[in-house]
Amino acid sequence: MGKILRINTKQRQFVFEAVPESLQGLGGRALTSKMILDEVPATCHPLGESNKLVLAPGLLSGTPAANSGRLSVGGKSPLTGGIKESNSGGLISQKLARLGITALVLEDKPEDDNYYMIVIKKDSVALLPADEYVGMGNYEIMEKLWAKYGKNTGIMSIGQAGEQRLKAASMQQADPKGRPGRAVGRGGLGAVMGSKKIKAIVVDDKGCGRIPQADPEAFKAANKAWVKILREHPVTGQGLPGLGTAVLVNVINEAGALPTKNFRTGRFEHAQDISGEKMVENMEARGGIVSEGCHPGCVIKCSQVYHGKDGKQLTSGFEYETLWAFGAHTMVKDLDDIAMMDRLCDDYGLDTIDTGVALGVAMDGGLLEWGDGKACIELIHEVAKGTGNGKILGNGAAFTGDALGVDRIPVVKRQALPAYDPRSVKGVGVTYATTPMGADHTAGYGVTANILGVGGTVDPLKKEGQVELSKNLQVATAAIDAAGLCLFVAFAVLDNDNGVQLIVDMLNAHYGLDLTPDDVVALGISILENENEFNLRAGFTKKDDQLPEMFDKEFAPHNTTWDFTEEELQVAKIF
Amino acid sequence: MGKILRINTKQRQFVFEAVPESLQGLGGRALTSKMILDEVPATCHPLGESNKLVLAPGLLSGTPAANSGRLSVGGKSPLTGGIKESNSGGLISQKLARLGITALVLEDKPEDDNYYMIVIKKDSVALLPADEYVGMGNYEIMEKLWAKYGKNTGIMSIGQAGEQRLKAASMQQADPKGRPGRAVGRGGLGAVMGSKKIKAIVVDDKGCGRIPQADPEAFKAANKAWVKILREHPVTGQGLPGLGTAVLVNVINEAGALPTKNFRTGRFEHAQDISGEKMVENMEARGGIVSEGCHPGCVIKCSQVYHGKDGKQLTSGFEYETLWAFGAHTMVKDLDDIAMMDRLCDDYGLDTIDTGVALGVAMDGGLLEWGDGKACIELIHEVAKGTGNGKILGNGAAFTGDALGVDRIPVVKRQALPAYDPRSVKGVGVTYATTPMGADHTAGYGVTANILGVGGTVDPLKKEGQVELSKNLQVATAAIDAAGLCLFVAFAVLDNDNGVQLIVDMLNAHYGLDLTPDDVVALGISILENENEFNLRAGFTKKDDQLPEMFDKEFAPHNTTWDFTEEELQVAKIF
Repeated sequence: MGKILRINTKQRQFVFEAVPESLQGLGGRALTSKMILDEVPATCHPLGESNKLVLAPGLLSGTPAANSGRLSVGGKSPLTGGIKESNSGGLISQKLARLGITALVLEDKPEDDNYYMIVIKKDSVALLPADEYVGMGNYEIMEKLWAKYGKNTGIMSIGQAGEQRLKAASMQQADPKGRPGRAVGRGGLGAVMGSKKIKAIVVDDKGCGRIPQADPEAFKAANKAWVKILREHPVTGQGLPGLGTAVLVNVINEAGALPTKNFRTGRFEHAQDISGEKMVENMEARGGIVSEGCHPGCVIKCSQVYHGKDGKQLTSGFEYETLWAFGAHTMVKDLDDIAMMDRLCDDYGLDTIDTGVALGVAMDGGLLEWGDGKACIELIHEVAKGTGNGKILGNGAAFTGDALGVDRIPVVKRQALPAYDPRSVKGVGVTYATTPMGADHTAGYGVTANILGVGGTVDPLKKEGQVELSKNLQVATAAIDAAGLCLFVAFAVLDNDNGVQLIVDMLNAHYGLDLTPDDVVALGISILENENEFNLRAGFTKKDDQLPEMFDKEFAPHNTTWDFTEEELQVAKIF
Repeated sequence: MGKILRINTKQRQFVFEAVPESLQGLGGRALTSKMILDEVPATCHPLGESNKLVLAPGLLSGTPAANSGRLSVGGKSPLTGGIKESNSGGLISQKLARLGITALVLEDKPEDDNYYMIVIKKDSVALLPADEYVGMGNYEIMEKLWAKYGKNTGIMSIGQAGEQRLKAASMQQADPKGRPGRAVGRGGLGAVMGSKKIKAIVVDDKGCGRIPQADPEAFKAANKAWVKILREHPVTGQGLPGLGTAVLVNVINEAGALPTKNFRTGRFEHAQDISGEKMVENMEARGGIVSEGCHPGCVIKCSQVYHGKDGKQLTSGFEYETLWAFGAHTMVKDLDDIAMMDRLCDDYGLDTIDTGVALGVAMDGGLLEWGDGKACIELIHEVAKGTGNGKILGNGAAFTGDALGVDRIPVVKRQALPAYDPRSVKGVGVTYATTPMGADHTAGYGVTANILGVGGTVDPLKKEGQVELSKNLQVATAAIDAAGLCLFVAFAVLDNDNGVQLIVDMLNAHYGLDLTPDDVVALGISILENENEFNLRAGFTKKDDQLPEMFDKEFAPHNTTWDFTEEELQVAKIF
């Protein structure tokens, strides 16, 4: 049986406790959201002593199930003021699971300014002074911690942004090569970690064996079939391993839904320059890695390592969202500038979406020129320096717009919109508006049926069917996040009648349960219920489930507008 | 009959229209709040084209009624996101009334960056290019405009803060001597004016006669009795003319409710150094004016002109709230530093309360040292310079706390708390929590019965009777704001059985009506209904009607806490 490791950051003490009845059978997002709902007063200040940071491996993390290594992190978000779950790849999820730790909970808040780090091993938990790492970026601290604790240890750390408790601050997790390329990016959870004065978490599962399974043979069989459907689906088997998520630049541009110049139009004339195809072309010339996984056991391998002109690594995990945010959104067309911005965000610990969107908003506010990548890079450096403009940018898009008196701020619940214009991919627009997370494509990726022809077909430009699509995807996504599975498995699951059953089979074989697909759906629903309940207690209303008025304007090339009523959108919500 | 002057700031055109049936009989806050509710979509961006700025004289403005020269300004607040009415003294209210203008409405928003000014005369309205005044502070622009348009013209202008559309930006109104000492301070309405690219409004009523009255003799008699009760009450007849509102420094400190060091304790050891008594002592040594009115017809004359060590005017309208915000709150004890900060806020166009509270919050965030007045002055200068830190400060206390990752932010609805700790003056605390305006002492000044023994006695440290007190005061205040009367008349009205009747008599004699005191109460109630309805549409809930958790902690010297439940507080609200 697992246990919960609670660390009081004020007393600098820890305690293991048994998983209470109320939390049994939960993992990943199901566990973080339930604990935050139960334990954190919804109206508390996100950076105050009452907030908590919960790290939870998924239900399948630590097993050999393919693509099950996502770690969920939950808390009250400094960005949105609501509940937040953000998850990432890396090594920690599987290691925590093997250590038998169902959740790691950071509580309270120190009164002094000293930083600590947490080192978790098979037989020990230590809180160690970490002042020597303060002011350090994630690249450097991860290198030092791998040097000290051995390669292949799981590392989570915050950069200068998290130390400053900025609202766009991420927690960065080391990937299997020790690079800070995996981000718990959205919602400013790095600021919560910073408020608790924890600079890094080191997780070492040396000495832990495999987790005993109820029915190893059944598990093996299910996992084999699972791997097969992932490998056979065109998106997870070919598209993502080939160009990574960057494959979407040309796809979404072609669809006329690539938000350009702060969501003014849906096509970027220089889309080709920032595309996955261009990225791979550069890799072929300069070296790099076209396809690798973000955690052991990944069979999709959509991540890559991108080199600069000098043939040295510039960044890793170079996602479509990042290419868009620093590219089309800001009119920057130099892929190397964009890669540098991605690297700096990994290093300083910033969400690339909110930071990129903030840069575009800052251009609308006159702080930068459209398309000036070098100026963007300089401004991101300001974040690490802690200047006034750095604090403005590092607090994200909504904050930057407010600072500069801009009225064109593409956010929902103060979280920046990702890389699909909601007027021309209405299915994902419904998710932006209604997910308890704030604008988040990963909370219900309506791009599937709207654009990619996965899981059916729904016209992206029309309202019909979008609310139902988003609602179903939000439920499915919550369940996937609870399992610790990579969201991209959804492509295969949506197109395969046996997909959900295989996940259920793995859960049953691992835990010795008799779950049905309906139970998994019920789990997804319960997660959303808990999250919406928290937000309700925090003061959110249906007024918060809408896009800003800038989306009432027509959007080229399809001349679409955002035309959902409050009432229509409420149908996508689960209370 | 009056008319409404609408100015489209995008088309740069104006139109006069008759007051429609639905707005007849309304003035001041009653009119601004009704028009904002009816005409502004509650979820719009406050700096966008859909917001409006409504300037309305009170119902008694333009008449000889003593203390009737307050001008109400309404709009959706960039600071709170809710409805806002803020009013000030000066010359405009009476002049607009004499010009027969019931409301001046600024609509839409230019697409270019050119600034204009509005010049209203008896027979003309002009929109004139104002680029020559851009970047100018209020002292300079008012001097230039009086030189150009003649002394005694009414001037409203924005400084550098309003141009930058900062959330703490005020609109400053020239006082009777042409100084920018009167502020439409709270809620960032200066940013709305800036968003509409209007740098200044000039109002000249030359050639207008007295406004005809239905019963001049009855009016004269009522006003005579009105002046008498104002002159005879100890607060309006002696306290306020003697030391101005600064009389409160020692009073509130003695009561243990002077929030010190960002609301950590209720007594400031250097209170005497920043008191009204000290101010007058300096005036006696250096020159200055101890008592003057903020508008013609004032018989209370609580304003003053404060000189520096060099014997020259440093600032005017040096209020208790300002002394506290830049003094006890930040631990600054040098009265001349505080006066300089007040001057800079008048000049750059900043609300002194939100700016002062922001400085204290910035001290908690490590940006400044406690008590360092010179550093505060430098930081306020940054606002005019438009630097990152300037933009942070100029966006107010909530924004500054967010920028710096501080969890100790004394705001309600993102507006900074004024100078009375809500734990030890609970009556005003209920107002902070529940007024639609965001934390605002002037919306229901429970200090009266809690501390000053005016209008009865309610123990400031106990909950009993506070909700009812605040509710009644909120209603009465709304009615006073509708009449265009100075809030301070309430001291006399609360202690005089004939007070409300005299206001009713003046209204009846002026307009030829048959109002009763009940009608005035009903007017106050309807104002609050309209304002709360707007906020409801904007997404506010009872979660927004509470103080932040920092007030749960015990407060010395009385060891009080903020202990009202959500439900208890809702009783103070009128929907």
